[in-house]
Amino acid sequence: MKIGILGSGNVGGTLGKRWAQAGHQVLFSVREAPPAALVETVRQAGPGAKTASVAETARGSDIVLLATPWDAAQQALGSAGDLTGKIVIDATNPLLPDLSGLAVGTTISAGEKVAQWAKGAKVVKALNTVGFNVMADPRFEGGPVAMFYCGDDGEAKRAVASLIADLGFEPLDAGPLSQARLLEPFAMLWISMALKYGYGRDIGFRLLRRAGNA
Amino acid sequence: MKIGILGSGNVGGTLGKRWAQAGHQVLFSVREAPPAALVETVRQAGPGAKTASVAETARGSDIVLLATPWDAAQQALGSAGDLTGKIVIDATNPLLPDLSGLAVGTTISAGEKVAQWAKGAKVVKALNTVGFNVMADPRFEGGPVAMFYCGDDGEAKRAVASLIADLGFEPLDAGPLSQARLLEPFAMLWISMALKYGYGRDIGFRLLRRAGNA
Repeated sequence: MKIGILGSGNVGGTLGKRWAQAGHQVLFSVREAPPAALVETVRQAGPGAKTASVAETARGSDIVLLATPWDAAQQALGSAGDLTGKIVIDATNPLLPDLSGLAVGTTISAGEKVAQWAKGAKVVKALNTVGFNVMADPRFEGGPVAMFYCGDDGEAKRAVASLIADLGFEPLDAGPLSQARLLEPFAMLWISMALKYGYGRDIGFRLLRRAGNA
Repeated sequence: MKIGILGSGNVGGTLGKRWAQAGHQVLFSVREAPPAALVETVRQAGPGAKTASVAETARGSDIVLLATPWDAAQQALGSAGDLTGKIVIDATNPLLPDLSGLAVGTTISAGEKVAQWAKGAKVVKALNTVGFNVMADPRFEGGPVAMFYCGDDGEAKRAVASLIADLGFEPLDAGPLSQARLLEPFAMLWISMALKYGYGRDIGFRLLRRAGNA
C-alpha cells in the first residue's frame, strides 16, 4: 500500500520506517528541508520511502497516518488537500500541553474531530495507545501486544488492521469511530503509567481470552 | 479485614464472596429482606459473611466497596452515614442508561464525585475495569489479568492492592484519584468489547513488561 505520514516525528517516523521495511511505499511529509533524524529514518526505511510536501504526501497515498502533535493536526489536514476516499489513521491523542490529561472529553473525541476536518475521508482511530518505542518493536514475552482500532468504514478498518498486524501487534476492532472517546483515555493511561507512575515506557497490554459461558 | 459491600449485585456479590472465602469478614448491605440470589451468595461465602443494613454495613467495615449502579451511588453513600477515615473502593462506572457511553467526562470522574460525596473517606477507584465473571475467576492462560487502582491516600491504596491481589489479579497503581477519568473509559472499552463488539465477557488485559532503554 501507499502510505503517507503526516507528522514525521517519533510515532510517524517509527511506523513509516517499519511499514516501508515491510514492503509498503511510504511518503514522509516535510515542510522544508528534512531534519537530520528524518533523513536517517528514510535511509533506514529503504528504497520504498521518501520525503514529500504535505500536499504531495496526501495526494500520493492511499492511507494517511496522522501522527502530528494534537495542536498541529487541524492545520496538517487542511494543508493535505482533498482527502475524499482516503483512509486516515488518527494516531493522535488530544493531550493537554503538560500531559496532565486530555483536552477533549468523552462526549467527543479527537478521532471524531479529525473526521469532521478530513471531509470525505474514512477515519480510523488506531496506533495511539502505546509509545513509539513499543511500535518500533512490539515483541514482549507473553505477547502479542494489543492494538485497538475503531472507525465507521469496514473496508478501511480491514486495511488498517492489516497494517497493524504488519507491525506485530494483535489488531483489535473496538467498534465505530466514536469509540475513540475510550481509546484516547486508554492512551492517556498508558502515557501516565509509562512516564509518571514508574512503569517505564516498555509496557504494553495483551488481550487474554478463554472459553467462557457468556 | 472487615469489608462492607454497598450494592450486592453481580459485582458486589462476586467480590464479597471471594473475599469472604479468602478469610475476610464481609457485610453485604440490603434494604429489606435479602433476595434469594444474595442469600445463596452469603451461604457460599461461608461463616465470614452476613447481610446488614446499609448503615450497619458501613459502620461495621474498615473498607467499603461501592458497587451500586451509578444512579444509586450518591444515595447509597448518603445512607451509609459517617465515612470519615474509611476506605471506599469505587468500582462503579458512570454508564449512560443504554450503555452507549459515560455520563461523566474526562474533566471529572465518578471516582472524584464519590470522593466529594463520601466526605472524609479515602476513596480508591478500582475493580471497575472488568466484568464480574472475570472477578469471579481471573485465571487466564497467559495471565494474570491486570487490575488498576488509583487514589490519593497511600495507605488506603496499599490495602486495596492487597485485596486485589487476594482475588488473583495483578494490582497496578495508576496514580491519584483523578486517574479515574482514565480508568472509567477503560472500563467502558472492556464493556463495549465484551457486550457489543463480539469478544464476549471472558476477556481481560495483562500488563506486559520487558527490560527497556527508557
